[in-house]
This record gives sequence, C-alpha cells and structure tokens, in this order.
Amino acid sequence: MKRTVYCGLVDESFLGKEVTLKGWVQKRRDLGNLIFIDLRDREGIVQLVFSQAFDEAALKVADELRSEYVIEVTGKVVNRAKDAINPKMATGKFEVEIHEINLLNKAKTPPFYIEDGINVADDLRLKYRYLDLRRPEMQQGLILRSKITQSIHRYLDENKFIDIETPYLTKSTPEGARDYLVPSRVYPGHFYALPQSPQLFKQLLMGAGFDRYYQIARCFRDEDLRGDRQPEFTQVDLETSFMTAEEIQDLTEGLLKRVMKDTLDIDIELPLKRITWNEAMDRFGSDKPDVRFGMELKNMADAVKDVDFKVFKNTLENGGQVKAIAVPGGADKYSRKELDAKQDYIKRFGAKGMAWLKVTEDGFSGPIAKFFNESVTTLCEAAEAKMGDLILFVADTKDVVAASLGYLRTSIAKELDMIDESKFAFLWVVDWPLFEYSEDFHRYIAAHHPFTMPNEEDVALLETDPHKAHAQSYDIVLNGYELGGGSIRIHQRDVQEKMFKALGFTKEKAEEQFGFFIDALDYGFPPHGGLAIGLDRFAMLLAKRDNIREVIAFPKNSKASEPLTNAPSTVAPKQLDELHLETTED
Amino acid sequence: MKRTVYCGLVDESFLGKEVTLKGWVQKRRDLGNLIFIDLRDREGIVQLVFSQAFDEAALKVADELRSEYVIEVTGKVVNRAKDAINPKMATGKFEVEIHEINLLNKAKTPPFYIEDGINVADDLRLKYRYLDLRRPEMQQGLILRSKITQSIHRYLDENKFIDIETPYLTKSTPEGARDYLVPSRVYPGHFYALPQSPQLFKQLLMGAGFDRYYQIARCFRDEDLRGDRQPEFTQVDLETSFMTAEEIQDLTEGLLKRVMKDTLDIDIELPLKRITWNEAMDRFGSDKPDVRFGMELKNMADAVKDVDFKVFKNTLENGGQVKAIAVPGGADKYSRKELDAKQDYIKRFGAKGMAWLKVTEDGFSGPIAKFFNESVTTLCEAAEAKMGDLILFVADTKDVVAASLGYLRTSIAKELDMIDESKFAFLWVVDWPLFEYSEDFHRYIAAHHPFTMPNEEDVALLETDPHKAHAQSYDIVLNGYELGGGSIRIHQRDVQEKMFKALGFTKEKAEEQFGFFIDALDYGFPPHGGLAIGLDRFAMLLAKRDNIREVIAFPKNSKASEPLTNAPSTVAPKQLDELHLETTED
Repeated sequence: MKRTVYCGLVDESFLGKEVTLKGWVQKRRDLGNLIFIDLRDREGIVQLVFSQAFDEAALKVADELRSEYVIEVTGKVVNRAKDAINPKMATGKFEVEIHEINLLNKAKTPPFYIEDGINVADDLRLKYRYLDLRRPEMQQGLILRSKITQSIHRYLDENKFIDIETPYLTKSTPEGARDYLVPSRVYPGHFYALPQSPQLFKQLLMGAGFDRYYQIARCFRDEDLRGDRQPEFTQVDLETSFMTAEEIQDLTEGLLKRVMKDTLDIDIELPLKRITWNEAMDRFGSDKPDVRFGMELKNMADAVKDVDFKVFKNTLENGGQVKAIAVPGGADKYSRKELDAKQDYIKRFGAKGMAWLKVTEDGFSGPIAKFFNESVTTLCEAAEAKMGDLILFVADTKDVVAASLGYLRTSIAKELDMIDESKFAFLWVVDWPLFEYSEDFHRYIAAHHPFTMPNEEDVALLETDPHKAHAQSYDIVLNGYELGGGSIRIHQRDVQEKMFKALGFTKEKAEEQFGFFIDALDYGFPPHGGLAIGLDRFAMLLAKRDNIREVIAFPKNSKASEPLTNAPSTVAPKQLDELHLETTED
Repeated sequence: MKRTVYCGLVDESFLGKEVTLKGWVQKRRDLGNLIFIDLRDREGIVQLVFSQAFDEAALKVADELRSEYVIEVTGKVVNRAKDAINPKMATGKFEVEIHEINLLNKAKTPPFYIEDGINVADDLRLKYRYLDLRRPEMQQGLILRSKITQSIHRYLDENKFIDIETPYLTKSTPEGARDYLVPSRVYPGHFYALPQSPQLFKQLLMGAGFDRYYQIARCFRDEDLRGDRQPEFTQVDLETSFMTAEEIQDLTEGLLKRVMKDTLDIDIELPLKRITWNEAMDRFGSDKPDVRFGMELKNMADAVKDVDFKVFKNTLENGGQVKAIAVPGGADKYSRKELDAKQDYIKRFGAKGMAWLKVTEDGFSGPIAKFFNESVTTLCEAAEAKMGDLILFVADTKDVVAASLGYLRTSIAKELDMIDESKFAFLWVVDWPLFEYSEDFHRYIAAHHPFTMPNEEDVALLETDPHKAHAQSYDIVLNGYELGGGSIRIHQRDVQEKMFKALGFTKEKAEEQFGFFIDALDYGFPPHGGLAIGLDRFAMLLAKRDNIREVIAFPKNSKASEPLTNAPSTVAPKQLDELHLETTED
C-alpha cells in the first residue's frame, strides 16, 4: 500500500475518493458497531470510521487499536454529518470510511500525552524525546527550523555564496570560552578541539579567494549552561571579501527579509534601523534592546540637578548619571512592597537603590515625593511621564544605571503586558567598543573577538588607549535577543599584532596560539568581514518558543547531559588506553 | 569602490564600459611604458593594462605590484589587438585599461606557484592551504562541491524532506569503528563520543513521526587512514517512513539525476541498473563493480572440468571455483615477468596462483598451454576470448577467486586504458548478506550495521543460520566506488533483539549499549529505511579528482594531523585538570 496523502492534508479535493493513509492512533472512540480513530501524521490528524458496513475485518482490527499504534488504512473520504463537523481541526469536515487496514506496529502506553501544552518534567521529555517530538508543537518547531535553513541556503546560493565545510577536529585556542577537547590516539598527549566557531577558517577562506563563503556550522562551547545556551549550537556563518560593514548589513537584511517571508509570510521593511552601541545603552540600557515597546531611559540630570535630594545631587557631582523610565499607567500597578523587591533585585547590577514617584492628580506621591513636588512639570517633561504613570529612577555610574534601568524596562514591560508579541522588531546595533573589561580575567578582553577591525581613526588608539577604541562591528538584534553579530576583520599583519598586544598577549603567546594565522596575513589577504547568526535562537524566536531546546531535536539538559542516550557515559578501559589517558579522582 | 563584475566574467557585454575589479595579481609583464597585469579572482583571470595614456599614477602603482598583491582597479573594457587574443582564456579577447588603482594588501612570495598541476609535497600544500586553495582547480573543486550540496538541499526540500540536525556530542557505542571521545568536565570519568553516523538518531526521528528526514552530517571515525578516508567526513543522510527499498532507491535516483544535471549538465538515464550482491560478486568479483568496461569474470568450470590439469581439477573437486577474465588484445601487452608480478600481487587475497593463456593463431601459448590446446574453442567461448586476447584464471574458493579476479579486472583496465573516464556509471547492488565474517573479531559482524532488516523470509534464519540471511540493503555504486548505501531498518523490538543475539551480544551488553533504542521500539515505530551518500567521495568523483582531500577545504593529512594549525596539539595542564584527566606515557 502506498500512501496517497498525509492525514493532515485531506481536503475537499479528495471527497469521494479512495485514499491510503499511514500514521499513529491519536484517539479511539468505540461505539460498539462503529469505531472512530483519530489518525495522526506529521501534517495533522484525520478521523477514520470503521463499521461493519465498510468492512468487517477492518472493524475487528480497529477494535484492538490503542494509542500510538502504527497503522496503514485505505478508505473513502466523505463529508461528516453536519453536527459532527469539528471546526478546530483542519480536516474537521471530513472523515474516511475504512475498508482496509494493516496494523504495522503496536505501542506501549506512552509516559505522557502526545499533545501540545503538556506539563511534564524536562528530563522525562528528553528521555522519551522520540515521543515528545511526536507532539504537534514540537513537530512544527522543527519543521519551521528546516524551512528557515532552506530559505537561507537559497538566498545565499542566489547571492553567490559558496557553502564550504570547515573542520570540527581542530586546534585548541582557549581565548574566549572553554574548548571541548578530543584526545588524539595517534599523538599521545595531544588533543584536537571542537571549534567554538569557524572564525579563523572562514577568514582563511577569504585569504584563499573564495570571496563569499557561508556554512550552517555546529559550534561547541564547554561553558556552564544558562537558559538558552547549549554545549553545541548552530550558527549561520558567512564571510565576504571587499565589502563594507554597511554592504554586509544590507546583504544580511535581504537574508532576514527572505526568511521572514518564506517561513511566516511576513514582510519586513528595509532598511532596518541602525543605532550605535552608545545610543542603545543610553536609550534602552541594553546592547540588545527590545524595541517592540517604548519606555526609554530618560536623562534626568537637568531636571533634578537643582533639587535638594542628596542621592541625586551627589551622584551628579561625582560624574554619575540620574536616569529614569516612566511606566505608563504604572502608578496603581505596583505596591510599595513590590517596588522594594525591584530595588532589591537590581542590587545584583551594583545599584545602591531605586527611587520612585507616582504621578497623581495632587502631584507626586511616594517616599521621596516631598523633594520633587515643586518641579512636577519639569520632571514629568524630562521623564515623558503623564498622570497615572510611575517614574523609576536610578542614580549611579553609567554602567550601573544602564544595567538597572535596562532590566527594569524589559521586566516591567513583560509584567504589564506592554509587548506586542506578534511583532518582530529587528535592529542593528553598530559601532561597538573594541574591548570590554572582564571581571573574570581582570583585564580588557575583545568585545567580539581578537580579529575585529577597529574603526579606521581608532587604529592608533591600539597602542595608546585601546579601551577607547571602537570597532567596525555590528550586532543584529531581534525582540531583545542578540540574533547575530559580525564585523570587518583585520587583514593586515601589523594591525593584528597590535591587537594581540593590546589584549595582553606576549609575542610568544600570540605566536604559539595564532602564529599560523598571523603568518597567513603576510600572503595577500583581502579586506574582509562577515557575520554569524544563531540559528537555534532564530528558530526559537520565529516559533514563539521560550527556550532553544524546543527547536533542537536532541538537546542536552541543563547539566549538559542527554537523558535519552545517557551521554556522557563511562567508556571501556581499552578506549582510554588507546588514547593514552587516565581519569583522575577529584 | 564597489566591484561591478568578477574578473573571470568580463565578457562582450562590458565592452566599452567602466568596470571595477578586485583580486590578486597573478602575473605582471613590464614593458616599461606599458604594464600588463593578470588579475585573478574566484571566477577567473582578466588582463589589465596600465599606461601613461590611461593614468600616470596608476602606472606607478602597477610598477610596484608583485604576485599575490591584492588590488582594486577601475578601467574600461576594450578589445585586445587581434594578435594579442588568448583563446585559452575565457576573457582572452578583452583587456581593461586602468585609470584607477588601490593597493589593498601586499604579499610575500608564496612557497609554490598559484596555478594548476603543481608538484608540491602534500604537507606543504596543507600548511599553506589558504594559498593552495587559490589555485583554480582547488577553487573549482570546492565550488562544484557547493553546487552539489545546493542541488541536494533543493531536491530533498521539494520532496518534503525535513532538514534536522542531530547531536555531535553523543554516546559512545563502540560497535563498528573506533569512536572519537570528548571528555566531560561536568561528569568526571565520563565521555561524549562524536557520532560515526547519525544512524540511531535518524531512526528515532522516524519513531518521532517526521516521515522524511535528511541532514548533511559530519561523521567521525578514529581509524587508520587510507587514501580516501578522513577522520571526519560528510554524508548526505536520509531516512523515510513507510517506504519500500525500491521506493527509496527511486527517490535516490531522482536525487542523483538532479545533482548530475545541476552540476555537470549531464542527463543520466533512469531507472539505474540494479544487480544483486551475488551477481556483482559473480560477474565482477566486487561488491562495487566499475561497469564502465566489460571484461567480466567467466565461470570456466564446465570448460575445464575434463581437462587433465590438476590445479583446476582439484579445486573443482573440493567445491572451489575456476573463473577467468579475457583481456582484450592482452596477448602482446604483458610479458611473462609482468604476469608473474600480478600472480605475486594477488597472493594478498589468499590466491595460491594465477594461470594464463594467450590466444594466438596457433592456439594457446604460455606455460600451461599444452594442457588446453585440445579445447581452445570451448575455452575461448567460455571465457569470451578471441584471437589476441589474454585469459587469466584463478582457481580457488569463491571468495578468493572474486577478490583476485576482481582486482585483476580493474587494475588491468586501468593499465590498458580501457575505461572511458568521461562516463559516470551508477549501479545499485542490492540484497546483501546480513552478516560478514570478521577476521579481526573472529566472529560474524553486521555487513552494514546491526539495525538492518533481514529479508522477510530470512528473519527465521536469525535464530538458526544467521550467516545465510540476506538483508533489505542496497549500495549505490559510481565508477567502482561505493557512493553510498542504505537499508530498510528493523522496527520491531523482537527482531532487533534477535539481531543483537545473532551478533553475539549478551542481553546485558545489548541493554547497556543500545537499551534506550531497543526500548524506543516499544512505542510505535513505523517501518522505515534510508540511505547515506558519501559527499566527499561524490564531489571527488564529479570533480574527477583522485583523493577526497582535493575537495575538502581543510583536510587532515595521512597521519590525521593538520599541518596548517598543527592540530592536534598539546594543551594547558589546567585544561586537563578541568577534564579530570592525565596523560599516560607509552
């Protein structure tokens, strides 16, 4: 029997016709002389009817069916009786009168229901991932992801990009995150590393003259996991020669437009907004602002500088900032206790406190209202607040103000349902600092990576004030998530050497880790730049899911293990012997 | 300056127009007041002309150019003088009169010429891979490979396959080749393994109901390397539910046809030939026969059984075979010494000897001619030999005869230039034995893998005579190479358990290694099957190269190391500490 149509695709055009269907029993209703089966495949569900009137043998088989049994059936598509039409089902107007059935496989009762919106522990879902993935929302997530990759392949192919695979067994260059290592059997004490990204290889491909490269590449980072991190993740990795940052951004916008159209049939308007990193931090307190809503950070310095409120005054006198957000209609949304909790929360960003004012008909209310009641108009203007709003202030250093108000802005927007979840708000954040200070390493590290080209006028700063230098780099942001990022790269040996020096590399260390690459720059490297987009995150956002695990077929859990296969696992002593390794006790 | 056209694509349509080009200096000819530069990019080469008449400053810059300098130029496309036309160059009719140039980067003198057909040690080419890849034949190989993958994506997408990524950090199941291991930092003494193929995951995806899956997947095997093996390689991996072996083959043929058309504009005729494994071994002495030429193995038993030549007689009496190939016109091609060398060579296949007869006008000649001169006609008919041919005999067990004559058939065809190298001869080899005897393990192992479905009528043999069972498996062969292979898989728990038992697994061992998968089969697995195609090999064959390294951007050398980055390398002690590992001395 050859399938003629997927269950979920039975429609008008099959009315009165014979169809052969294959799939899983979703549900069975037994009315004695009449059995209804909901049959499910990846495209959806259709109702089968078994009756003595159609075929007695088939009815008998149907009697034995249970959930998740696998069957193939042949029957005639007919209209359901009017009162039996199910408007919630795509195939709800039809049913199939079955006269032939083969039971292909039986099934035990699954440990959870095969349906959307189940409330089941993550690890149980992962242990039975093959069942979890039968659920329609999981199927649709992965099908959407596949559509995204297809759309990407087509767009980049049409734009003359060459798909080139780079090695997964490569050299450990532990700058940045921790490498996953792979012991060599042939060379005792030697290790390959799994790539954190194809960065150096794609640059070498530009040196090799391929002009436009791309790859949908797996990347690996052995870091402690957070919500949307996985030990292995996938990026759409591209690199071009002879193009400016703006040209690469234009090209990327074309890609995003194409994907949105191909997958969700959404037209996004180009060009996308581009704002500088400085502006993003200033207006949104974030380098990946969610611009689906307003509530921007306002500088209150002018409005409060003459008010006799010590906290603000001292901060301003010490070169700090006083900034605020105005929560629309927030005056009656938050109790004092809730606001105290918010104040406590932002201490993790280094904030010493949070001040607040409610805008009422009688002026401000709140514990510090008395200080400001003479300047209601000035303050409300500066904060763009109106009657009924809640104004939240943070007075501190620039970084603490940005982090605290940036957090408050997004968390409150979620709490108050201010975000239009149907929107996809893309945004470029450009002109990033070249370096950022790392609390972990107690030194400046590359904000993107050590191969990022400084702005032309900032190259000289590499030798004088590197932390003042800005980079020819750009991030693409979607709905408050960093979707991807890229930069123009360094293509001259002397600039690359200065960059490593500014990062605190000795000549020897640079040579040992990146010598082969620095040497390559001697042989005629073209100006080049590129970008990488996080595919997992992209798929998650388009699928409107809240964790990348939901769009990865077999993800690791939050402890980097895989409950289905039980990876990682112990191995045979012989395997370790061959790799010249012993495990140590801790 | 924005590029208007690639160098290699300058044609008639640009005549008289301004173009901006970017690329590498291939060659410079200095005639004093006139300088010619061959400018190269990935699409080819075009000639630039610099002269005072066009721009004096540009002429000065051109004077300083050396090989592999990177430049951008603007100029006017003109016809070359008739006597200066170069018919070997795609752009050979034109040149570009340059009036503006920017030197973008300088270059040291490369360690080898950037041109095709160089004779340079492999490791030097790999160390400077970014230069090696600038050579047109390398660029074209990788561009062809990219075209193959694009074609595959499109065909499979159109055929409703879903591209799903499976994990690279997974569980070690050391059945088959040796795994690459990845130590876990979180779980001391535990290891992930890099997948040898996505086999189990793609089967689980069928269990999950995706119906049609594919992936262009990297696979890893830690084996000693041979000519066309690499530690990591790429396969086009696909799997379908509810399809028969023949349906999967048809679908694959559509894929092959599409790729051949899209990449080389070659139409292949469908359906492809399908022969059984038995027939392949019988007629060609190979499970991956090259059918671009004849010279098939002929069974000589009937023709020689009454001849009084002991070697043949004894072999036949002991249940062995006597088979031969007739080398067309081979009588005067090989000296006795050369034939002795061949006889020596086939000893590695277990052959005790090789007999030969030359067909001359006076009957047979050769050391054993006297035994056969009475049956010239019978023998020539049986061997399909004619005047001037050379008949080579091997008398031995079936396996030894096949291996020896199979080898002689292909090596002689190469020596005598009997193979039409322009041909692409695809062939299915079907109905493989389920098991093969492993000399390494001294037991029967799975010929494909332990998840291959036996022929329906052979399932019972699993418990009685497993080595007699044949499988629902198929290989696709191209020009004597195994291009890919696949099978219908086992989807019932009881059959899978019998299979492991037949392979000598205890219940405990099966449970430990594959328990999660056997358990999964309890939950309603559909009948399913699939195929994997070796992408590296496919690209190599279409590019007419003789090693897969030529179509891999950054391959390992024959010792599994990577001379460019020096991977594998030693790592910092801290890295090993974090992984709870020590290296041992050997």
